[in-house]
Amino acid sequence: MLAHRLIERKRDGDRIEPGEWRALALAYAKGHVPDYQMAALLMACFLRGLDRGETSALTEAMLTSGDRLDLAHLGKPRIDKHSTGGVGDKVSLVLAPLVASMGVAVPMMSGRSLGHTGGTLDKLESIPGFRTDLSLAEAQQQLVQIGCAMMGQTPEIAPADKKMYALRDATATVESIPLIASSIMSKKLAEDLTGLVIDLKRGSGAFLPQLERVLELAEVMIKLGADHGCPTVCLVTAMDRPLGRACGNALEVEEAIAALKGEGPSDLMAVTYALGAEMLVLAGVAKDVDAARRELQKSIETGRAAEHFQKIIEAQGGNPGVVDDPAILPQAAECEIFAAPRRGFVARIEPRTIGRGIIEMGGGRTKVEDHLEPGVGFVITARPGDWVEAGEAMATIFARDRAGIASGRQALRSAFVIADEAEPPLPLISHRVTLSGVEDYKLSS
Amino acid sequence: MLAHRLIERKRDGDRIEPGEWRALALAYAKGHVPDYQMAALLMACFLRGLDRGETSALTEAMLTSGDRLDLAHLGKPRIDKHSTGGVGDKVSLVLAPLVASMGVAVPMMSGRSLGHTGGTLDKLESIPGFRTDLSLAEAQQQLVQIGCAMMGQTPEIAPADKKMYALRDATATVESIPLIASSIMSKKLAEDLTGLVIDLKRGSGAFLPQLERVLELAEVMIKLGADHGCPTVCLVTAMDRPLGRACGNALEVEEAIAALKGEGPSDLMAVTYALGAEMLVLAGVAKDVDAARRELQKSIETGRAAEHFQKIIEAQGGNPGVVDDPAILPQAAECEIFAAPRRGFVARIEPRTIGRGIIEMGGGRTKVEDHLEPGVGFVITARPGDWVEAGEAMATIFARDRAGIASGRQALRSAFVIADEAEPPLPLISHRVTLSGVEDYKLSS
Repeated sequence: MLAHRLIERKRDGDRIEPGEWRALALAYAKGHVPDYQMAALLMACFLRGLDRGETSALTEAMLTSGDRLDLAHLGKPRIDKHSTGGVGDKVSLVLAPLVASMGVAVPMMSGRSLGHTGGTLDKLESIPGFRTDLSLAEAQQQLVQIGCAMMGQTPEIAPADKKMYALRDATATVESIPLIASSIMSKKLAEDLTGLVIDLKRGSGAFLPQLERVLELAEVMIKLGADHGCPTVCLVTAMDRPLGRACGNALEVEEAIAALKGEGPSDLMAVTYALGAEMLVLAGVAKDVDAARRELQKSIETGRAAEHFQKIIEAQGGNPGVVDDPAILPQAAECEIFAAPRRGFVARIEPRTIGRGIIEMGGGRTKVEDHLEPGVGFVITARPGDWVEAGEAMATIFARDRAGIASGRQALRSAFVIADEAEPPLPLISHRVTLSGVEDYKLSS
Repeated sequence: MLAHRLIERKRDGDRIEPGEWRALALAYAKGHVPDYQMAALLMACFLRGLDRGETSALTEAMLTSGDRLDLAHLGKPRIDKHSTGGVGDKVSLVLAPLVASMGVAVPMMSGRSLGHTGGTLDKLESIPGFRTDLSLAEAQQQLVQIGCAMMGQTPEIAPADKKMYALRDATATVESIPLIASSIMSKKLAEDLTGLVIDLKRGSGAFLPQLERVLELAEVMIKLGADHGCPTVCLVTAMDRPLGRACGNALEVEEAIAALKGEGPSDLMAVTYALGAEMLVLAGVAKDVDAARRELQKSIETGRAAEHFQKIIEAQGGNPGVVDDPAILPQAAECEIFAAPRRGFVARIEPRTIGRGIIEMGGGRTKVEDHLEPGVGFVITARPGDWVEAGEAMATIFARDRAGIASGRQALRSAFVIADEAEPPLPLISHRVTLSGVEDYKLSS
């Protein structure tokens, strides 16, 4: 009866009160509200919207539908980074050990790949033995010991969100700013953070391609963070092309390890440093982003960051030898160079096509239960704006068999646009959004 | 995948094409589209609306999701009456045998009581032995033999509608004109009619209280009828007070039998004759409504109509003796007179309160699976506008026990409003709506 009344109210454009959101989320998490009622409510929310108070109450309701980490006793800042997801985005793999190596706790709960974007958990699990299904108790202990845990959303964390997220995916109610914001923030707030940095992707390969909508989402999330005592900073970064060179689970781990050793591609390093610097400033361990950036570089140069990744891998059951010898990672059986079909400028490298190509090759998912082939994917060496001659190598395809190579080749053929004129790509990092508003991103010093 | 794409389109205010509605209804009827996806789509339809073409396509899709009667071989007109439902509305019980007695086939599929309104099937089942669960084959045969069948929606009739109707009830998506219209019309069109008369209730006890919305619904249904070769006429009648005197299943059967013998209350007779006359004109067996009315009266006066009811009862396994001796009907164990608490005008008799009172006494349903007590209810002798003295009898309460009497008394106390001035009730029959438009209803001759 509660659900029916709330659907009716939201349908008619009325508010749902905090106590009602709480009761609903709890009842839904317990299975007392059927999916079809929640689906009708979600569509009504999608079309009627939620105001700031409702979004905050829904976030709180999903958060309190489950357990959360309790990290106050750590006695140090707890900062996480969240990304709205993209192709080739392995920043979390570099950032978590890097920031943890600076004495900041990073309790990082991530997701799996779904659709064209990759997922941090799948990438980590390509490391032989690596377990991402830590219990909350294990995560707490690991955070005490090495200041970082890289794990999935446990069943106890925001269970209402977990069910609602799956339902939204099936009912075309994903792209709603308040629903996206409350879903992300309910999980992040469960990590008991003292600060949060969000990497909001924009461009054709992003979940929300348009800048206007991205900034709207940023604003809602920043306010949600503020409402719940978790200062939040958003950076808007480009996802009109893949980030870095490697796209595919094991290939991205290999590139992340290189980055931790100071050998990452420049765009990956720039985004990693920008986000990391914000994290250190939020943590209060650096006085400004310039100082923070210098500290981060030092941690990489001295090998401390890579060493910290080894500790994390070891703590989570993985083979830490992978940091010194990435050949331990699963390898694709077949590989082939992809050459430019004509001379010209690389006008575009379409991330969605790349991401879908990886799914075709078995390295991604269309359904939650799909099994993954960790070694497959692409290493893309050409960048938008590059001039290429016909026959020049632009990428390497890694596949489990010849059919996979053929399908990868097909994907790259549609993903690459070679033209007589270069198209200017989006700026790599374009905006910084805080509670004070939106500013153009400036790389100081 | 189909469902997801259609939800997305309707969510964004786009059209769904006829072939898509057909595929969706079929897939939903077969269980290949989950309820949660249909719920999200229904909410999107509720909020975004359906245009005439879509409403027609949805109707057709629900119709063709199942079987239908095939009555062309009967060689006579097939006319049915539908009512949007009210309290004390036993018109179907009188009209079906009456019109069938004039040589018109009446394939009448009805519903059960739900909420404050009664249901024809529940009323009929208070006749000992009466079966309403006829198969389509049984109904066809009975229509050949006696020109009438009074039955429920079989599982084969518009199965997509059957599932969608239940889902709408649970997801607050009932009160949508295109969804209501297509649901009603998909069932009626499955009766293979040559004409349809719809009794649209308005006033506080109606499903849609406001005249404006009622006329909107009438227009949509008339167009749907026209689109599917079934000429449709709507009459708008009053449901700001119960129709007739009896409210409750067996009590209403008793009053319907009295009406078939020419002894019904005047308002019940007026609505019955008005709807019946439209049916005969649509059937082409009377040249105009005045002539039709005279024929109907004659059928009642000669006893043909009552005799026809006996035939129907006998054919459907009921005890036909009930027509001569209504005491065969289930009787309530307790009864009590309800007297006017003060002198004054009967200003209002609220149908919803009466209907809910019957539910409280066990004679109605709040859930589909509720068991019914057939004998309980009210016989209300006072009419709005009547002058009553304190202590004067206004109604009789029929209940299964003293607790039921108390609860019935409570309901009547809130349902009756006695005031110093009379409030003018709604005109009993106010509008006639056809393809040519809305006209004020005039009782000619």
